[in-house]
Amino acid sequence: MACLVVKAGGRSVFPEWKALFAELMPQLDVRDWYDSALDPTEVTYALVWEPDAGRLAQMPHLKAVLSVAVGVDHITADPNRPRHVPIIRMGGAETAIQMADYVQWAVFSLLREAPRWHTGQQERQWTRRGMPQTRLSTETRVGVMGLGSLGGHVAQRLVQTGFQVSGWARHEKYIEGVTCHTGPEGLPAFLGECDTLVCLLPETAETRGIITYDVLAQLKKPSGFVNVGRGALVVEADLLRALQDETLHGAVLDVFSTEPLPETSPLWGQPGVLITPHVASEASRATRARYVVSVIQALEQGQDVPLRYDAERGY
Amino acid sequence: MACLVVKAGGRSVFPEWKALFAELMPQLDVRDWYDSALDPTEVTYALVWEPDAGRLAQMPHLKAVLSVAVGVDHITADPNRPRHVPIIRMGGAETAIQMADYVQWAVFSLLREAPRWHTGQQERQWTRRGMPQTRLSTETRVGVMGLGSLGGHVAQRLVQTGFQVSGWARHEKYIEGVTCHTGPEGLPAFLGECDTLVCLLPETAETRGIITYDVLAQLKKPSGFVNVGRGALVVEADLLRALQDETLHGAVLDVFSTEPLPETSPLWGQPGVLITPHVASEASRATRARYVVSVIQALEQGQDVPLRYDAERGY
Repeated sequence: MACLVVKAGGRSVFPEWKALFAELMPQLDVRDWYDSALDPTEVTYALVWEPDAGRLAQMPHLKAVLSVAVGVDHITADPNRPRHVPIIRMGGAETAIQMADYVQWAVFSLLREAPRWHTGQQERQWTRRGMPQTRLSTETRVGVMGLGSLGGHVAQRLVQTGFQVSGWARHEKYIEGVTCHTGPEGLPAFLGECDTLVCLLPETAETRGIITYDVLAQLKKPSGFVNVGRGALVVEADLLRALQDETLHGAVLDVFSTEPLPETSPLWGQPGVLITPHVASEASRATRARYVVSVIQALEQGQDVPLRYDAERGY
Repeated sequence: MACLVVKAGGRSVFPEWKALFAELMPQLDVRDWYDSALDPTEVTYALVWEPDAGRLAQMPHLKAVLSVAVGVDHITADPNRPRHVPIIRMGGAETAIQMADYVQWAVFSLLREAPRWHTGQQERQWTRRGMPQTRLSTETRVGVMGLGSLGGHVAQRLVQTGFQVSGWARHEKYIEGVTCHTGPEGLPAFLGECDTLVCLLPETAETRGIITYDVLAQLKKPSGFVNVGRGALVVEADLLRALQDETLHGAVLDVFSTEPLPETSPLWGQPGVLITPHVASEASRATRARYVVSVIQALEQGQDVPLRYDAERGY
């Protein structure tokens, strides 16, 4: 019988997971990561967020590690993880729709420079003068970096909404209505045509620190920036500099190099910046439980699953 | 020769209008409303915002009054206006695209309850707990009140973005993907199925004060409200009550019964409310000048123009 250990959302949430799985797959034996009576040799699947380093290696019959989030860097950070055990990323339509909803909100906020309205409201000031000429979605090109299961859906939704859309990925992609660029050699042309950049890359050795001042300065000026990938993709000092010298007119940031974002971070008060607490895509536990069950059932029947981590690729 | 008098955007803006028309229609004689040497008998067209009461009546050869905005209530408010002279509303694709962009921003802001994020940012607080379960665009129904040249475009764009969309209008309309309701008898069914209400009605004797507490209470609970029509459509005390008792979880407001919104208005600080200073749709002067020229050329050639004010209908 399959045995799933869960470390996702904190100890208080475990009963909720247990109840969800009891309904969806009654024969699944569901255990709490923090249960001192847990016998690690019984565990065959682990659903985790930031597993304590070394713990997974103590589970000799582990068949797969499932990430409770789309990213898996919080698992691969454990140098002692059992490398022969596949890691599966979180998937499902709800995750992609939520991400696209958030990105649309972010891109429209930048298009209309909504942070200026928020400042006006805080000061109870009706400020119409001195506002920039209003741009149209139809004359604005949004660039999506990363065209995987999430980025591809986001790019498609932006096209449907009426934006001009470009995309950038490691390997060639075809998405209707999206001008796609590929690899390091395609990056300058991609950046040079975009008014707003949306970063949806996974965190890998190649992508860490990829968003530098030099990259932001290649966008059309002044441009907007959205980060919904990972905080480590961005050199935060460079981002601040680009905002301060008005290379960027604004940014919408959901992920940061340190989370929670420290109270002392200058990003909180930087004009033109909207900060959200890593909430862009958060499928409900019920939805994630359904996805986890579908993965376990497929693996138990010897089938392959699509969102398998590839160590060489890095995601 | 056609002679156009301009009162739009304040005195300081007149030279800009003059230069725009000089390029688009050199033979058009363009005059300043405030020019004391202006001979009112020469004027054949007027492009106006809030014309001083009685002034238009002094222009015996006026062929049309053009509103610099989509609404015309600022012209019809003059009891002495020359009633035989047609009033033409502002039109053009840019106006509709801007309105749809703003409404998308507003609807996504309400979907994700963005005001909570703004409060967190102001307080430098990383607040993820206690947030409502994230809704998806695909499971949210947006209702558009008013399906004219703007409302129809807005409803279409919301469908393309992935929302469920209903519409309400005086007379039957067909817009692909939109569930349309008609007249007072169709209002309860319309309100009862909507999670978010977007008000895009013109201001007429029939629509003034149409948004009452009772109307807002018929929406699905808790719901969001967007007003981009006119401030007078809403009973503001009722709107506040609906926000305070959480009938509404939020509102995005661009128009108010008094503009600029007075510093003392409780709306500025009401949790869940986003205030913008009547900027939802503001086509550039260049675009509006192009539209004005197209209207004058059509009328000079004896053709009809579509956005003609109908006194009986009220818009």
